[in-house]
Amino acid sequence: MKKILLKSAVVDVHGGKTTRKDIVIGNGKFMKIADEVSAEDCDGCEVVDCSNFAVLPAFYNGHTHAAMTLLRGYADDMELSRWLNEYIWPFEAKLTDEDIEIASRLAVLEMIKSGTVFFSDMYWHREYTMKVVEETGIRAAIGVTISDMLTPPDELEENFAFLAAHRGESERMKLVVMPHSVYTVSEKILRRCIEIAKAENYLVHTHLSETLSEVDNCIRQYGCTPVRLFERLGGLRDNLIAAHCVHFTDEDMKIFADSGATAVLNPCSNLKLSSGIPPVQKLLEAGIKLALGTDGVSSNNNLDMHEDMKFAALLAKVCGSAETLPAHEALELATSKVADAYGINAGTIAEGKLADCLLVNLKNERMVPCHDLISNWVYAADSECIDSVICNGKFVMRNRRVDGEEDILKEAAACAARLTR
Amino acid sequence: MKKILLKSAVVDVHGGKTTRKDIVIGNGKFMKIADEVSAEDCDGCEVVDCSNFAVLPAFYNGHTHAAMTLLRGYADDMELSRWLNEYIWPFEAKLTDEDIEIASRLAVLEMIKSGTVFFSDMYWHREYTMKVVEETGIRAAIGVTISDMLTPPDELEENFAFLAAHRGESERMKLVVMPHSVYTVSEKILRRCIEIAKAENYLVHTHLSETLSEVDNCIRQYGCTPVRLFERLGGLRDNLIAAHCVHFTDEDMKIFADSGATAVLNPCSNLKLSSGIPPVQKLLEAGIKLALGTDGVSSNNNLDMHEDMKFAALLAKVCGSAETLPAHEALELATSKVADAYGINAGTIAEGKLADCLLVNLKNERMVPCHDLISNWVYAADSECIDSVICNGKFVMRNRRVDGEEDILKEAAACAARLTR
Repeated sequence: MKKILLKSAVVDVHGGKTTRKDIVIGNGKFMKIADEVSAEDCDGCEVVDCSNFAVLPAFYNGHTHAAMTLLRGYADDMELSRWLNEYIWPFEAKLTDEDIEIASRLAVLEMIKSGTVFFSDMYWHREYTMKVVEETGIRAAIGVTISDMLTPPDELEENFAFLAAHRGESERMKLVVMPHSVYTVSEKILRRCIEIAKAENYLVHTHLSETLSEVDNCIRQYGCTPVRLFERLGGLRDNLIAAHCVHFTDEDMKIFADSGATAVLNPCSNLKLSSGIPPVQKLLEAGIKLALGTDGVSSNNNLDMHEDMKFAALLAKVCGSAETLPAHEALELATSKVADAYGINAGTIAEGKLADCLLVNLKNERMVPCHDLISNWVYAADSECIDSVICNGKFVMRNRRVDGEEDILKEAAACAARLTR
Repeated sequence: MKKILLKSAVVDVHGGKTTRKDIVIGNGKFMKIADEVSAEDCDGCEVVDCSNFAVLPAFYNGHTHAAMTLLRGYADDMELSRWLNEYIWPFEAKLTDEDIEIASRLAVLEMIKSGTVFFSDMYWHREYTMKVVEETGIRAAIGVTISDMLTPPDELEENFAFLAAHRGESERMKLVVMPHSVYTVSEKILRRCIEIAKAENYLVHTHLSETLSEVDNCIRQYGCTPVRLFERLGGLRDNLIAAHCVHFTDEDMKIFADSGATAVLNPCSNLKLSSGIPPVQKLLEAGIKLALGTDGVSSNNNLDMHEDMKFAALLAKVCGSAETLPAHEALELATSKVADAYGINAGTIAEGKLADCLLVNLKNERMVPCHDLISNWVYAADSECIDSVICNGKFVMRNRRVDGEEDILKEAAACAARLTR
C-alpha cells in the first residue's frame, strides 16, 4: 500500500485555532505529523496538496441498520406501531440476501459521501453486509443480531459459533453480540447473550429505553426499568453499548454511568418517531460515556452523522445552556467517542492512530470566514464540504467521487422498485 | 430574456408521488406546464433535459441578518448577553459599507447554493445589501431597520422617506418597516412604525417573544406580553411578520392567530442560543400562519433553509406526535408560506406563478430509492442534491456553480481577517 503525504494540511490546534502540518500516512496509520516532514519520512509517498483542506477526524456511526436504505421514505409521519406493523416489517420480510447486499452497498456509499468510515450494524443476513464492508474499504461492527421472532431458539448457539469463527478475521471489521432489545428478546436469551459476551470478551449492543412504552412495559413485566434489568442480568458493564437511552430515570443514569457502559444517542430518529428528546445534557452531567449514531434510514431518513452531530449539539444547548456541549465536544461524540466505545484505535488526527480522516474543503462557502475551524465544521458545514475520505490509510472517496457509485444507485433503485411492485 | 423549457421534469403530484411534465418558463413566470408542450409553446426556448431532475420550489428565508456571515464562528457556545456585548456588537460596530457589501455577497452565494432565492433582511447599511440583491438576481425584503440605539430620533422620518422613495423600484425587492424588537425600540417609536406601515400599506417585521427574559421584561415595563403590546399599539395585524415566537402564552397564540399575522420560526438559532424550543405544533394547532427563517449566521451558523426545515419538522413531531407536520407541510413552511407572508406570488410550481425553482438531482444517493419524492427531499437530502437554481425565470446557479464564487469567498475571507486583526 502506497504511503500518502498530506502536505501542508490545516489542522485544529485548540479552541478552533489552526496550524499547518505535513501528515504522513503508511501501514494504515498516521506515521508522522510535523511542521515539515523530512525527505526520508515521506519517501515513496503520494503527495496530496492540502493547502486548501482541513484534515479532520472521520465520523463513526455508533448505531444503524444499514440495509434499511431501501426503505428510505417508504413510510413517514405515522405512529410507531402502524409504521412497524403495516410498513416496515412486511417490507423487511421480503428482503433476500441479494437485496441486503445491494442495500448495504447504498448505505456504505451514502456514509462515505457524508464522511463516515465506520458503522455499527444491527441487522440480518449479516454475511452480505460483511461482504460489502470488505469490498468498500471501510470499518464496521457487524451484529450477530438476536430477537425472539427472528432467531429460532435452536439457532441461537449457531449465531455465537459464527461469531467465534469469524472473530478477528478482518482488521476492519468486528462482530458484536446484539440482542435487539428487552422487549424483543426473552430474559433467558438475553441472559445467554450477556453471559457469552462476558465469557468470550465480546461487546454487546442493544436498543435501550428508546420509548416510554418500552420502559413502562419493562416495569410491568420485570418490575424494573430496562437499565435495571440489564444490571440484574449482569449485563450493565463497560462492554455494553446501548442505543437511544432517551428515557433514563435518575437512578438509571447513576448506575449506567458507574458501569462504564456507553450510550449512543440517535437524535434525528428519536425526534422523527416522536420517541422523545434525548437528554444530552443530563446524560453528560451524570458522567455517562456518550456517542452518536444515525439509526436506520427509515427513521432519519439518511445516514449523515454530521446532521445528528448538529442536532445533538443544539438539543444539548436548548435543554441546558448555550455553553453546553461546545463544538469540539460535539465533534468528539461523533468521532473518537464512538471509536473508543467499539475499541478502535482511531478518531483523532494523531501519530500512531489509525489513518481515518476527512479532507474538508476550506473554499466551500460554509467554511468562510474561518474564525474557528471546529465551529464552522460542526455548526455551518454539510457533506459537500468533504472533498475526500481516507479510511485505514486509503482513499475511499476523492474529490467527492466514490468508485462505482452510478452502478450502486442504479441497482438500489431497481431493487426497491422490484420490492414494491 | 430567453425562455427556458424544463423538459421531462419530475414533479410532485400528491403525497410524494411523481409524474413528468414539460415546464416552459418565460417573462419570469411558469408559462406552461403540460405532459408535453407544443412546438409553439416552447419556440425559442433553451431546452434543459430534466429527466434526472425533480423540479421543486425554491426556499424563501423569512428572517435573517445577511451581512452577519462575516461573524460565522466568531463567537459560539456562550450565553446571550456575553455573546452580544463582548463579541457581536463590538464586531458589528466596525463594519463599513464595503464590509456589508462583501458580507451580503457571501450570504447570497451561500443562500443560492442551498436553494434559497429570497431573504428578509433585518440589518443596517441597507443600500449595500440592496446593491448585492440587484446584481445577483435573487429576491429580498430589505429592512428599514429601527432601533433606539442605532436610529437617532431625528433620522427616523428619513428612514421612512427612504422607504417611500425606493418602494416598487425593483421587481425583486421590497422594503419593509423593521422595528428591531419591543426591548430595543421605545413605545413611541414602535407606535410610529406601526402607524406609518398601516397608513402606507407596508409590511412590518420584528423580533417577537424570542426569549423568556424578553417576555418577562416586557411584562415588567408595560404590564403585558410583547404580543399584547403589539396589539395595544395597533400593530397586531395581517401585515405583521414576527420572527421567533418561541414564548407565546395561550392568550398570545389566540390573538395572534385571529390577527392573521405570520410567525417566522428560526429553530436552529433558538436551540443554539438556548432561547427555547419553538412550539411548532402548538402554534399550528392555534391556527397561526407559520413560516421559517434561518436567523443570522452568528447563531445558526449557516443560511441553510433545508436544515431549518428538517429541524422544524422533527421538533414538531417530538413535541406533538410522529404524524405532526408531515413532509409536504414542512416544505410549505420553507417555501410558499414565506412567499405568501411577504406578498410574493411564488412558492409552488404552477402556471402563472413566478418562476423560482430548484433542479434537484435524483441521482444523488440521498434521493435513492424514491418511494416518496417529498419525504426524500425534506428528510434525507442536503444542499448537494440541488443541481441548479432558477429565480425569476433565470438560472442563478447551474451544476452547482455560481458566477464569481471564488472572488466572493476570497474577498470575504480577506475582509474578516482585516476586521479581526
